[in-house]
Amino acid sequence: MTSRLTISIDAMGGDNAPGIVVAGAELFLRQYPGVHLLLFGDKEQLEPLLASAPLLAAASEIFHTDEAVSMSDKPGQVLRKGRQTSMWLAIDAVKQGRAEAVVSAGNTGALMALAKFQLRTMAGIDRPALGTVWPKKIGQCVVLDVGANVEASAKQLADFAILGWAFASTVLAKSNPAIAILNIGSEELKGPDALREAAAILRDERLGLNFVGFVEGDDLTTGSADVVVTDGFTGNVALKTAEGTARLLAYYMRDAFNGSLVSRLGAFLAAGAFRKLRDRMDPSRVNGGVFLGLNGVVVKSHGGADDTGFASALDLAANLAGSEFSSKISESLVRLNSQLDQGQQADSAPENDADGDINTGITAAQRI
Amino acid sequence: MTSRLTISIDAMGGDNAPGIVVAGAELFLRQYPGVHLLLFGDKEQLEPLLASAPLLAAASEIFHTDEAVSMSDKPGQVLRKGRQTSMWLAIDAVKQGRAEAVVSAGNTGALMALAKFQLRTMAGIDRPALGTVWPKKIGQCVVLDVGANVEASAKQLADFAILGWAFASTVLAKSNPAIAILNIGSEELKGPDALREAAAILRDERLGLNFVGFVEGDDLTTGSADVVVTDGFTGNVALKTAEGTARLLAYYMRDAFNGSLVSRLGAFLAAGAFRKLRDRMDPSRVNGGVFLGLNGVVVKSHGGADDTGFASALDLAANLAGSEFSSKISESLVRLNSQLDQGQQADSAPENDADGDINTGITAAQRI
Repeated sequence: MTSRLTISIDAMGGDNAPGIVVAGAELFLRQYPGVHLLLFGDKEQLEPLLASAPLLAAASEIFHTDEAVSMSDKPGQVLRKGRQTSMWLAIDAVKQGRAEAVVSAGNTGALMALAKFQLRTMAGIDRPALGTVWPKKIGQCVVLDVGANVEASAKQLADFAILGWAFASTVLAKSNPAIAILNIGSEELKGPDALREAAAILRDERLGLNFVGFVEGDDLTTGSADVVVTDGFTGNVALKTAEGTARLLAYYMRDAFNGSLVSRLGAFLAAGAFRKLRDRMDPSRVNGGVFLGLNGVVVKSHGGADDTGFASALDLAANLAGSEFSSKISESLVRLNSQLDQGQQADSAPENDADGDINTGITAAQRI
Repeated sequence: MTSRLTISIDAMGGDNAPGIVVAGAELFLRQYPGVHLLLFGDKEQLEPLLASAPLLAAASEIFHTDEAVSMSDKPGQVLRKGRQTSMWLAIDAVKQGRAEAVVSAGNTGALMALAKFQLRTMAGIDRPALGTVWPKKIGQCVVLDVGANVEASAKQLADFAILGWAFASTVLAKSNPAIAILNIGSEELKGPDALREAAAILRDERLGLNFVGFVEGDDLTTGSADVVVTDGFTGNVALKTAEGTARLLAYYMRDAFNGSLVSRLGAFLAAGAFRKLRDRMDPSRVNGGVFLGLNGVVVKSHGGADDTGFASALDLAANLAGSEFSSKISESLVRLNSQLDQGQQADSAPENDADGDINTGITAAQRI
C-alpha cells in the first residue's frame, strides 16, 4: 500500500453514525497513519466529533451533505432519489477516481444497489458477490456470496471462485488457496445441478485453481478450504445461522456461570479468559462484508458495529485497495472465459465428469 | 402413550453399534419401562451386551441377521441388495404393523431411501421431510426439511409446514404453533419465488395455521417461530453450519481457559457451570432427526451419538408414536388440498398477495 491511499466513508451510515464512524476511523488511523479519508455527511454533526479525533481531523476532509440513506429506505427509492445522500456521494468518489475504496455501515440493500449502479461489474463478471471473512479453528476463510444474489448459475459460481481466490491470495495472504463449493453431504442427493456444473468448470486444469471439491456447512469452521463458494441465498442463511448460534451459546454461557456462588467466583478468576473468548466470538472483530466483482472496493461494515468493528472494516478496505486484487482477477477471468469458450466449441459439456462427490485429486495448480 | 408401544431398532447402525445402541436403549427404558423393543442385528454380538443391560434384556426380542448397512454403502445398492440388513428388517417391522416406530443411527441416505421405499409417503404428501429439533434461547423449534430433498416447490413447502405444525403441536406440546419460512432479509431481494408462493398458501385463513411470515437464519435460535420451513438443501447447510459453529466456540472456550494458571483455577471452580454448558451445547442431548410424512415413525439418531444420544432418539420415537401426530396431519392435509383446489378453480393464483416481507397479522388460527 502506498502512503497516498484514499478511502471514502459514508459517515452517516449505520445505527450509531456518525459517532462510531469517527471513533472507528480514529482507531484505524493509529494503525494506518498514511491513509487519507474522505468523510461524506453532515458537517454540523461531524465537526464537533473531530475535535476529539485528532488523527482523523488531520487526515480527512469533510464533504457536507444534508441527506442520508436510512436503514428502512428501499433500494429502489434510493436509486431514484438518493443522489445527494452521503452513501451515493461516498461511492461516487470511487467512481471519479478520488478514492480507491468506500466503506459504509448503512443499509445493505441500498449499498448493494448503488454500488452496482454506480461502479458497474468488472468486465467478464456477470454479478458481484458479497464476501465475508469466516473464522475457523485455525485461521480464516472467505465465504461468498453471502447475500448479493438469490441464485447463481454455474458460470456465476465459477466467477465467485475467482473473486474468492483473489481475495484469499491477497487479503488473507494464502499461497495457492484451496477452493471449495458448499454442498450437502447426503450420498443419495448430490446437490443442485449448478453446483456440479460449477465443480466441473473449476476442476479443469487449464484454470490453474486449487479446487478441492464440495464441503458441508460444518467445514466452514473446521475444514481446510480457504475459499467457500455458494449462492447468496444459501450463504446468507449460513452466515445468519452462525451468528445466531454464537449468540445462543454466549447466552448459555452467561446463564451457566451465573448458577452458583462458586461458579461466579470461578468466572471472576477466569475473567481474562472470558474476555479473550468474547473477543474471538465477537463479530465486530471480523467485521466487514465486501462487495467483490465491482470496479472499485466497496466494504460493508455491520450496521450495529462499534468503533473497533468500523476500524476493522476500514482495515479490510485498505488491504483490498492496496493489493493486487483487481489485476489478479482480470488475469484469471481471461482464462475462465477462454476455457468456457473452448468447452462450447468442442461441444463437450462440462458436467460430463461431474459425478464424483469430492474431488480429492488436488490439482497441482499453477499460480499466476 | 400406552404400555404396549413397540419400537424396532436397527441395532447395527452407527459408528459405535451395537454397544451404544444397547446402552442407549437401557437408559431409555429407565424412563419408559413399559415400551417393548425389537432389536435387529447380530445375535452373537447382542446377547453378551444384554447381560449388562437387564431392563433391555427383559423388554426386548432379538431378531438375528448377519447383514448390516455400512456408512459407506450407496442407497441404491442397499435398495437392491439390502433386504436382509438390520436396517431393512427394522423398518419392515413398522410396515408389518409389529412396531409403531423405528430408530437407526446408521447411514442417513440409505435410511431415507429404504424408509421411503418401504413405508411410502402419507396420502396427500408429495415428499417426506427430515425434521430436527433446534435449541433456542427459550425452548425449541422444529426445522424441516434438513436434508431429505434438494429442492422444494411451494406445495411441498406447505406440506412441510403442516408436518412441522403437527410435530410442534404434539412432540413439542406447543399450543397453536407459530410457523415461519426461512428466507434472507435483504430488502432488494425477496427470496426465491417458491418461498413467496408458499407464504401465500400458508397465509390463507382457510388453512387455519398460525403463519407468521419469513424469518432469517439467526431467528432459528432467537426468534419466536415454533416451526421453520425450508428446502432440504438450505436446511442441511444451516444445520451443519450451526454444528460447526458450536464446535468452533467449544474449541475457543477450551483454548481461552487453558491460558493462565488463574484462568485454569477459575475454570476448575466453575466446573459445574462448564458441565451444564456442555450439556446444553451437546448435540446428542437434542439428538434425532425424524422423517416426517411417511406411513410410520422413522427416527435417525446421529451416527456418532453416545448412549444418551441414542436414548433421546428413542425418546423422540416414543413421543411421536404415542401422539396424535398422524391424525393431525391427515386432517390438515384435507384442508390444504381443498384450498389449493379452490384456488385453482377460482383461477386466483396464490402469489397475488405475496408482496409483503413479513405477515405480522397473525391469523387467529382455529386449532383442530
